[in-house]
Amino acid sequence: MTLEETLAQIRPLDRSSEEAARQHLARLTKPEGSLGRLEEIGFRTAAIQRSVPPHLGRKLLFVFAADHGVTDEGVSAYPKEITGQMTKNFLAGGAAINVLARHYGVETIFVDVGVDHEFATASGLCDRKIRRGTANFARGSAMTQQEAQRSVEIGIALAREAAEDDLLVLGAGEMGIGNTSSAAAILCALTGLTPADAVGRGTGIDDATLERKIAAVRKGLAVNQPDARNPLDVLAKVGGFEIGAITGVILGAAAFSVPMVLDGFVCGAAALLAQRFSRAVRDVLFASHRSAENAHGAMLEALELTPFFEWQMRLGEGTGACLLMGLIETAVKIMREMATFESAGLTEKLA
Amino acid sequence: MTLEETLAQIRPLDRSSEEAARQHLARLTKPEGSLGRLEEIGFRTAAIQRSVPPHLGRKLLFVFAADHGVTDEGVSAYPKEITGQMTKNFLAGGAAINVLARHYGVETIFVDVGVDHEFATASGLCDRKIRRGTANFARGSAMTQQEAQRSVEIGIALAREAAEDDLLVLGAGEMGIGNTSSAAAILCALTGLTPADAVGRGTGIDDATLERKIAAVRKGLAVNQPDARNPLDVLAKVGGFEIGAITGVILGAAAFSVPMVLDGFVCGAAALLAQRFSRAVRDVLFASHRSAENAHGAMLEALELTPFFEWQMRLGEGTGACLLMGLIETAVKIMREMATFESAGLTEKLA
Repeated sequence: MTLEETLAQIRPLDRSSEEAARQHLARLTKPEGSLGRLEEIGFRTAAIQRSVPPHLGRKLLFVFAADHGVTDEGVSAYPKEITGQMTKNFLAGGAAINVLARHYGVETIFVDVGVDHEFATASGLCDRKIRRGTANFARGSAMTQQEAQRSVEIGIALAREAAEDDLLVLGAGEMGIGNTSSAAAILCALTGLTPADAVGRGTGIDDATLERKIAAVRKGLAVNQPDARNPLDVLAKVGGFEIGAITGVILGAAAFSVPMVLDGFVCGAAALLAQRFSRAVRDVLFASHRSAENAHGAMLEALELTPFFEWQMRLGEGTGACLLMGLIETAVKIMREMATFESAGLTEKLA
Repeated sequence: MTLEETLAQIRPLDRSSEEAARQHLARLTKPEGSLGRLEEIGFRTAAIQRSVPPHLGRKLLFVFAADHGVTDEGVSAYPKEITGQMTKNFLAGGAAINVLARHYGVETIFVDVGVDHEFATASGLCDRKIRRGTANFARGSAMTQQEAQRSVEIGIALAREAAEDDLLVLGAGEMGIGNTSSAAAILCALTGLTPADAVGRGTGIDDATLERKIAAVRKGLAVNQPDARNPLDVLAKVGGFEIGAITGVILGAAAFSVPMVLDGFVCGAAALLAQRFSRAVRDVLFASHRSAENAHGAMLEALELTPFFEWQMRLGEGTGACLLMGLIETAVKIMREMATFESAGLTEKLA
């Protein structure tokens, strides 16, 4: 399924299901609205699924790994090799995301879209490698327009396959040393924010590295002149393969009517791209958390999304997404399992 | 075990376990501090348990139900009968807290400490009824000093029994029409906040009811003159049986070294009382959320606690506590199950 076909399939949210879901919630044995944002999750999920109450199903998280040529500019606290090493850690089950996913019953699919390492076959990794890392965007385009489109369509295909089988919610996370530089460059290109405001400390860099990172993003924008009206152009020039793939999963979630949970700053850059491809994408998005990354708040404002957690997390991998995916299941169960005032024989509110 | 004996057993937090827990977290395969408040939960739990990594165990929530004479002042949107009816709904498994507790694997014990209804025996309810509701505090003391002490010691005894058997975390919630009036009066008595600032809309009252509620709290304080230096006096004069029992659970959690999760505004009033009994109580407390109730923010400031959710919830029952109890288990699993840089063969951070 091509990018064009996917965009054509995205419909606006079903407001009649949302209204029916609100009425359903009002009959449950609690004061109206008293579960706050847990109710918001419930009626939005109903509207996305066009089902009251919403149905349960699998919770599936894609974690995309890829390398970034911009690490040549000295923008990270960790060497590039960490991307491949952490990917192996994912497969061995020792990373934070493995612990959280096991705990919340979230299925994980780890996808190599561009790691600079050849993994053993039968490692359990989903191989969609486009190339062993992007080029250094501070010196030219990170990838070709064809590669950018391919990365998005990889995400779409994975979302489509997942949506065929009893799905409640999709999430996405990432691993890629250097990718907060790419996310910051996308944020600047699409919103006009300056590199000094958009660049943060990522995994925890010192002041000198921060200066190099700001300079790298500034160079990337000057050298490539990404076109803000063309998200594919922005992705190709300053993006990353994992960012393109997440953009595709988001577009797929919107096209196939599945609630989609975002993770942190890098995932948010993919969501910005997805919203530029199709404004209606916003209706299926849930921002899990506002991270410790400096410009994540500005990014969430640009996305018009209100996060559910503000816990100073900044790990990526889908860790924030995983927490909220568990809570989406909770919200759906509230709608499916609670007694109504009538069924419980309760006196209603005083007039 | 008496209140006095319990207070004597409360020790300050073990800072050496906290430090060892921080060092343990620094060795795990993630940038230092990158799981934010999830790490805070981890090292505080280690310090409370005096164990690195912390141990897992049962998650147990007490939900205390009781009636309030102050409902005679017309302070609630619901009739008093709802307390007993909702208690039956708890036992039937149809309330929000039942859904959440099942989902998160939280054990629940529903305790009648003063509902104005005689329940059938063998209903599954834990019977610790002190009396069929407090007296109207707007016209005199809500209960005797002996009853106040008894309510606290009921909570202590339940916490003590629970702590004997493989416990990870305790939580508390409540059900009692009229109890936000009592919580507001306690907040005023202990902090000097005015009734106009301390009283909120509880389950969702209109303007006229709000005026009556403020007037009732004002009368309660004027008639009873609770002594801010004596938490038992405050509890007796303007408190409730469920509030006293929660105070007891909190003191028990502190005495028996168990992390204790608070729910909303009413539970917070119990925590304020507990902190006046013993300042060191604060170290075992986790504030799950800031509710939609007007003065809950001021109350959390007085408790010196930072909530984990701000989702505009205002249901009580332990619903907010239950969400965080699940996350405490998550945080402990992070500490127990993640690989270290060494075990995963990862290159450490660049120097």
